[in-house]
Amino acid sequence: MQIDRSPLARPFPHLPDIAGVTLRVVRAGYKTWDRCDLTFVELTQSTSVAGVFTKSACASSEVELGREAVKQGRARALIVNAGNSNAFTGWRGREAVDAIRAQVSTALGCREDEVFVSSTGVIGVPLPIDKARAGITAALAAQPCGWEDATNAIGTTDTFAKGAGASAMIGATRVQFAGIIKGSGMIAPDMATMLGYIFTDADVAPAFLQDALERANAATFSCITVDGDTSTSDTVMAFAAAKAGNLRIESWDSPGADAFAAALADVCRTLAQLVVRDGEGAQKFISIRVSGAVNDDSARRVGLSIANSPLVKTAIAGEDANWGRVVMAVGKAGEPADRDRLSIAFGGVWAARNGLPVEGYDEAPVAAHLKGEDIDIAVDLALGDGRATVWTCDLTHGYIAINADYRS
Amino acid sequence: MQIDRSPLARPFPHLPDIAGVTLRVVRAGYKTWDRCDLTFVELTQSTSVAGVFTKSACASSEVELGREAVKQGRARALIVNAGNSNAFTGWRGREAVDAIRAQVSTALGCREDEVFVSSTGVIGVPLPIDKARAGITAALAAQPCGWEDATNAIGTTDTFAKGAGASAMIGATRVQFAGIIKGSGMIAPDMATMLGYIFTDADVAPAFLQDALERANAATFSCITVDGDTSTSDTVMAFAAAKAGNLRIESWDSPGADAFAAALADVCRTLAQLVVRDGEGAQKFISIRVSGAVNDDSARRVGLSIANSPLVKTAIAGEDANWGRVVMAVGKAGEPADRDRLSIAFGGVWAARNGLPVEGYDEAPVAAHLKGEDIDIAVDLALGDGRATVWTCDLTHGYIAINADYRS
Repeated sequence: MQIDRSPLARPFPHLPDIAGVTLRVVRAGYKTWDRCDLTFVELTQSTSVAGVFTKSACASSEVELGREAVKQGRARALIVNAGNSNAFTGWRGREAVDAIRAQVSTALGCREDEVFVSSTGVIGVPLPIDKARAGITAALAAQPCGWEDATNAIGTTDTFAKGAGASAMIGATRVQFAGIIKGSGMIAPDMATMLGYIFTDADVAPAFLQDALERANAATFSCITVDGDTSTSDTVMAFAAAKAGNLRIESWDSPGADAFAAALADVCRTLAQLVVRDGEGAQKFISIRVSGAVNDDSARRVGLSIANSPLVKTAIAGEDANWGRVVMAVGKAGEPADRDRLSIAFGGVWAARNGLPVEGYDEAPVAAHLKGEDIDIAVDLALGDGRATVWTCDLTHGYIAINADYRS
Repeated sequence: MQIDRSPLARPFPHLPDIAGVTLRVVRAGYKTWDRCDLTFVELTQSTSVAGVFTKSACASSEVELGREAVKQGRARALIVNAGNSNAFTGWRGREAVDAIRAQVSTALGCREDEVFVSSTGVIGVPLPIDKARAGITAALAAQPCGWEDATNAIGTTDTFAKGAGASAMIGATRVQFAGIIKGSGMIAPDMATMLGYIFTDADVAPAFLQDALERANAATFSCITVDGDTSTSDTVMAFAAAKAGNLRIESWDSPGADAFAAALADVCRTLAQLVVRDGEGAQKFISIRVSGAVNDDSARRVGLSIANSPLVKTAIAGEDANWGRVVMAVGKAGEPADRDRLSIAFGGVWAARNGLPVEGYDEAPVAAHLKGEDIDIAVDLALGDGRATVWTCDLTHGYIAINADYRS
């Protein structure tokens, strides 16, 4: 099946070269396609690493080993296989990852736990070790490539290449960021991964990098949803190559720590929103701003309850200002809410205030807002100071076509 | 929009008359339609009542008042309004329910809290008091009707009338059950209710009736899902008219208590499954049997995670034995699970065993099973003795058509 380019797509941005980071792509042939599907990122010896991974109880060997290996804080290589997630393949899947780590660590003269592996694609088929081995041999001899080529190589049924850049000042030193990402939840038939990677030339201690990544993740990747279906392989990693010459950031007290974290969060937010923009069948990009919750976590859960509701998502697809469905989704969230304090707005126009429809509510400006591409829903619970913004897309015939009509 | 009769529909069964229960229907005109939309059930003075209600934080006044009133255990009347849920209407909605209760209690010479009211339909529009009043006046003078007429009158966009009967022996006395139900989650645009009512002529103490209903509910209505969107008005009530002449059931130790509870649960199970069979856009009826969980509750939550996954539901719609998506849904459930012990079967054929695809797995019988109307998915977690069965339907273009293409 040919999946059309998302109407919400964005052009691939100009991303800076990151000193200490070398990209290469080759065709390992994990599927019968004529494209590169193995990405090999070589990292300089001084590189710090951090990662956040799926909480799935059925995570892949790649995730299990990566989660363990980030604890030692150093990375020399990242290998991404596209077309096969190697998830739910038991000891045979584990053997494939071990083989890749052994081959790369020998070639680079590093420890095996400095080699990180991700795989994305069909679940339940062990990654073919012979194809992986030949691919890595080819990659070690290949010419370096640019960000867009690498982004295309990690993609599966993504309809556009998704990247984001940023820079920050640490003292008098400018540091650069480049991030790439693929997928959107379980974006395509039998595919099962959101994989995101952010590279920077900054000199940052691993523990700080991990903390900054976890904070950024909580407000960005943890606030997006396409279909509520969490994959077995979700991975976001940050690599800091320490080539910029900045005074090393050791903790939140180090000069430039906040600027670094802000730039990292910016890249994460842009990448997260791009994933939503490539959501299966998406026609509308929806921002849900929840305020007045008892705390920020509660606000996020209310937002996700709205964002995951098929009835809210189909209402937006139908350009229908159906705020009763938002009431329903708030009510079922399992979070503190008081029906008689609840207020709901579309595109800045309050449809309901304090548990009652607004008298003389004029639907015309709301209807005009809903015809647009970017939809804004605000919910005020009027209970406390908790707030969160959650991003999602609408639920359309395109989603059904991609996931039901197409046979894997 | 004309919604076609569900391909999974069942004919309305023959239901027994229940002594002490009188049904009447009239047209109050809550919408511009030419059908009865107010159902008036008069109950004999000795009637015990029990109820379970939505856990939504945004429940309607009907639900709030009903939840409070069942505690005193007696009912004389049930009024069901169709076409307007009266939810999220603040004090104005409350006024309408109060007016109905006052009018009916005066007419029947009973207390106001013996009058139960349900409403189903659009959210956010106060129920018009004048139409309700005129409707009740007409109902008090109307001729009694049968179960199918009453079932049609409580429906909104249901595509077929759903009822179930049973009988049980209490000592030497045969007692009868008749149950009717409408809806399926938030079954239709702006509609927001599953309403179910079970009537019996048995003599049963209210506390026992409540306990038996809660137990039955846990294994039936709490185990179905169409779209995961919990309504603001869900209500299931049981009424026992004490006309059968059986020795009164006071507790689980009373003779016939188990037989009564089993018959009540049978009716609930049939009604719950009929709701799934009328799920929006449903083409397949799916049973998900989870075993080997750490306890029954955990098994139910794993089952609901699978049943609510849009990727699993679209796979079934596409007749695709995509067990990788079942792995994903088990993994994201947030319940204890061990990837390397997990087994998955479709139609009794194991596709994966102990965390690995089954060697030489033949998809042909599974493909044949998936072409049928009734689909069976079994998941064994191999951790403990917990088990549960959950019922759902597939996710099709019909669901999108009903909820997005149609403007409310």
